[in-house]
Amino acid sequence: MTQPFRFELLGERNGIRRGRYHTPHGSFETPCFAPVGTRAAMKGLTPDQLRATGAELILANAYHLFLRPGHELIARRGGLHRFMAWDGPILTDSGGYQIFSLAHLSKVDDDGVTFSSVIDGSTKRLTPELALEVQRALGPDIAMILDECPPGNADPAVVRRAHLRTLQWARRARDLHDSWGGASRGQAVFGIVQGGPDPELRAESADAMVALDFDGYAIGGLSVGETKAQMEIALEVAADRLPADRPRYLMGVGTPEDFQTAVRRGVDFFDCVTPTRHGRNNQAFTREGILKLRNLKHAEDDAPLDAACGCVTCRLYSRAYLRHLAIAGEMLGGVLLSIHNIHYFQDVMRELRAEAEG
Amino acid sequence: MTQPFRFELLGERNGIRRGRYHTPHGSFETPCFAPVGTRAAMKGLTPDQLRATGAELILANAYHLFLRPGHELIARRGGLHRFMAWDGPILTDSGGYQIFSLAHLSKVDDDGVTFSSVIDGSTKRLTPELALEVQRALGPDIAMILDECPPGNADPAVVRRAHLRTLQWARRARDLHDSWGGASRGQAVFGIVQGGPDPELRAESADAMVALDFDGYAIGGLSVGETKAQMEIALEVAADRLPADRPRYLMGVGTPEDFQTAVRRGVDFFDCVTPTRHGRNNQAFTREGILKLRNLKHAEDDAPLDAACGCVTCRLYSRAYLRHLAIAGEMLGGVLLSIHNIHYFQDVMRELRAEAEG
Repeated sequence: MTQPFRFELLGERNGIRRGRYHTPHGSFETPCFAPVGTRAAMKGLTPDQLRATGAELILANAYHLFLRPGHELIARRGGLHRFMAWDGPILTDSGGYQIFSLAHLSKVDDDGVTFSSVIDGSTKRLTPELALEVQRALGPDIAMILDECPPGNADPAVVRRAHLRTLQWARRARDLHDSWGGASRGQAVFGIVQGGPDPELRAESADAMVALDFDGYAIGGLSVGETKAQMEIALEVAADRLPADRPRYLMGVGTPEDFQTAVRRGVDFFDCVTPTRHGRNNQAFTREGILKLRNLKHAEDDAPLDAACGCVTCRLYSRAYLRHLAIAGEMLGGVLLSIHNIHYFQDVMRELRAEAEG
Repeated sequence: MTQPFRFELLGERNGIRRGRYHTPHGSFETPCFAPVGTRAAMKGLTPDQLRATGAELILANAYHLFLRPGHELIARRGGLHRFMAWDGPILTDSGGYQIFSLAHLSKVDDDGVTFSSVIDGSTKRLTPELALEVQRALGPDIAMILDECPPGNADPAVVRRAHLRTLQWARRARDLHDSWGGASRGQAVFGIVQGGPDPELRAESADAMVALDFDGYAIGGLSVGETKAQMEIALEVAADRLPADRPRYLMGVGTPEDFQTAVRRGVDFFDCVTPTRHGRNNQAFTREGILKLRNLKHAEDDAPLDAACGCVTCRLYSRAYLRHLAIAGEMLGGVLLSIHNIHYFQDVMRELRAEAEG
């Protein structure tokens, strides 16, 4: 059987890895940004609109889909690609982050985690095995192991315990995935480096994950309230220890500034809700900084959001129109700003890729 | 100066008028349905998505745009076509219907109407002249006169007074429009036949409007709580009295059944919020009737909304996916159902046009 996953490292320059990741649903160029369609929908955007931004890889969330409509229902529909009509690469997050960011509602033990459903408060349980089974049913190209994500300000002892537990869970996930035939069956599984702000723990976590020989590696635990210094530590360790021939994924990050830093430390891809969330909140990322479209100063501004942007929003509409939509609460505003923001994030990545090509 | 507006009657069959209306922003085939973008936005749909449904004429509302962001602001942006990036024909309603459907907040006198803004409660006033000036600033292809719309259950005396007042306002609108050079300056103005449920009053109103020689004629006062019998009366009178060489527009109607009736009585076009409003409420028009997507029975249904529909929603998605979006409250659901519903309404019109072509 041919190996359906392959990371091609096309070149390297200024620390930027210019790559291409091959998956059963086509390849994507790296470094890149994956927009987030948590519940198998990219907010108000259709697949065509998303593709037009340049997005090639998208993310959905196994935790949310496990709760509703259920992974088995989606499996019976032929899987996530068909269900949401996205024929390109899809990655699903396991849900670890979501479960632990609702920490007061979850109870972790060595075997797994018990939590209250965000939908109806009912008690649910995920184990490292079930998290993979859910993702196997959903059928994304890339699945993530279940990890324990302590908060950014957690006690060193808590961070250490979470790292050790994540590692045990990673072994169990690895074993289960191997028992299915591994990535050759059409789904890659990525390990997640934890370890919080402690460089030694990060190194220990990275080495142990690498020893498990995952198809790729995520750098986790950086999404909530982490300082830039913590990100630097995590990136430093990753750059030194993760194997060059596997993709590196920085989870839940972030902003164009973060991308500049992380890509130059060898990160290959990112996901974040920022562009769509900011879009729905009437905020646009531009080369001039973030524009708040509700501001009066845009009321009569005939300029596009960003004169250097080629997205449909910037080609067709003025800031004045977008402000009108924001003030009137028209849903088209959220759609157009989300399109622009995703396109803008892709532009950042296009420029980084071009830089790596020299 | 060439006349920029021309109604070509291409044929007639089973009472259906197969026509083509030429405007400064291109022609549209009739009979047709105009989707409603009240505040210069078609809810969550982009112009491309709208065009793909087959829509050629769209409607915006002068009353809403007068209040916010203001017609002068839109005029300074180059007008409505440019502002909302729709380069096809646009019609604006004058706002009569909106003002009078908030009747407890409005006070009508012979000169005009004073009302509270729906946005901030401030006192506003529209006259027949200002309604046309607002629309001249907005720059749609077709403007409507200001009319007084009594409720469907109003006293005969109230209906008669509203008809006479609308007629006086129509004369003032006609005079002002003539003083600007009439439709040759790029904007057609349509009269509105009122008269409520009384056939004699309807006839009197139609004759008087026709005597004023408008560019086209709307049949008004049928949007709120009218019975089918009242619609029949209004259509009968219109069919007998409106000139064959001018387009006929049934305002604020309605459903595919209404179209079947009215088109066979010679109505050329319609507008209604139904397809987008139903779409946002998770209801789809289909050849099987209206589907309520929240219903459990759609949870595992792999069929498209309507097997005979060629819209993007039906080409790409199952009822199961659309139900998931409805239950999860994802905005993509409203977008996809609005696209389908508008496409479905266009299909009804395409079929009626084909029938007229024999």
